[in-house]
Amino acid sequence: MTVLRILGIDPGLNRCGWGIILSDGPRLSHIAHGVVRPKADMSMGRRLSAILDGLEGVIEQHDPHEAAVEETYVNATNPKSALALGQARGAALIAPARHGLFIGEYAPAEIKKALVGNGQAEKEQVAFMVRRLMPAAGNVAADAADALAVAICHAAHGGHRKKIADKLGGAA
Amino acid sequence: MTVLRILGIDPGLNRCGWGIILSDGPRLSHIAHGVVRPKADMSMGRRLSAILDGLEGVIEQHDPHEAAVEETYVNATNPKSALALGQARGAALIAPARHGLFIGEYAPAEIKKALVGNGQAEKEQVAFMVRRLMPAAGNVAADAADALAVAICHAAHGGHRKKIADKLGGAA
Repeated sequence: MTVLRILGIDPGLNRCGWGIILSDGPRLSHIAHGVVRPKADMSMGRRLSAILDGLEGVIEQHDPHEAAVEETYVNATNPKSALALGQARGAALIAPARHGLFIGEYAPAEIKKALVGNGQAEKEQVAFMVRRLMPAAGNVAADAADALAVAICHAAHGGHRKKIADKLGGAA
Repeated sequence: MTVLRILGIDPGLNRCGWGIILSDGPRLSHIAHGVVRPKADMSMGRRLSAILDGLEGVIEQHDPHEAAVEETYVNATNPKSALALGQARGAALIAPARHGLFIGEYAPAEIKKALVGNGQAEKEQVAFMVRRLMPAAGNVAADAADALAVAICHAAHGGHRKKIADKLGGAA
């Protein structure tokens, strides 16, 4: 089985959650988590830079093999907020891409299904399962719990390398 | 009068235009322009990285003092495209922010007004005025013309330093 360190990211302009887990076959364990919080009084460019710098620091410290990001929910009635979210998401995607990491993207329903077994589960159930699967993480803040959840979802999907091995007809 | 090199950026995921102009009091001159074109078959993260890397290369080569970016037009009927545009815009804003440049943001109507004297002017009139003001630029591609236009608009507004001098009651 491949041992993978996976970086999960929950993009946001005010609070960008991140979590690092270790996936060793079916066993998952918590390594670290946190939230990058750019100051709201900074210009947009500097807030985005702070997100990128924060995530690059996490990558340099924990050296993950792969990354996973939640697909951003787009509110059809608010394109201005979609633009702002897109900016934060752009900053969050650049960090792992610059370090050559494969980035898995998962819809909210896929993440819920991977953690709770039900794509329609409540957000609280996902956070509950994150705490249950990773008791060492302690009382995780919501943004970091979402980031750990997407990393767990990526592990449950076997990571990128497993998928490639499947395509090639070999074992992971 | 303050002499300023200004970097104008027209953010886009497939084509991100840039232009560098020199503003020496009322005199404007063309220094360089171009378009960063991330390959469409790359992942989103790598396309955004390519935009950031391309613009950082421009900044390192031309050492601008300030930057100017067009405010992204948000289509109320297409939040998915607003998200994609936001991602490209995020990458474009990080480059000057990381280099400590002040970033001026201008609405399309402000840019049209600064170049043509009419906020409702056609896009072609703006490109015509860019070529007229900067004959040395030659036959500029549309994205780079938009980038030069926002840089010219920033110069017409006196740049950031002029505005600060005005606030302090001093001369620029």
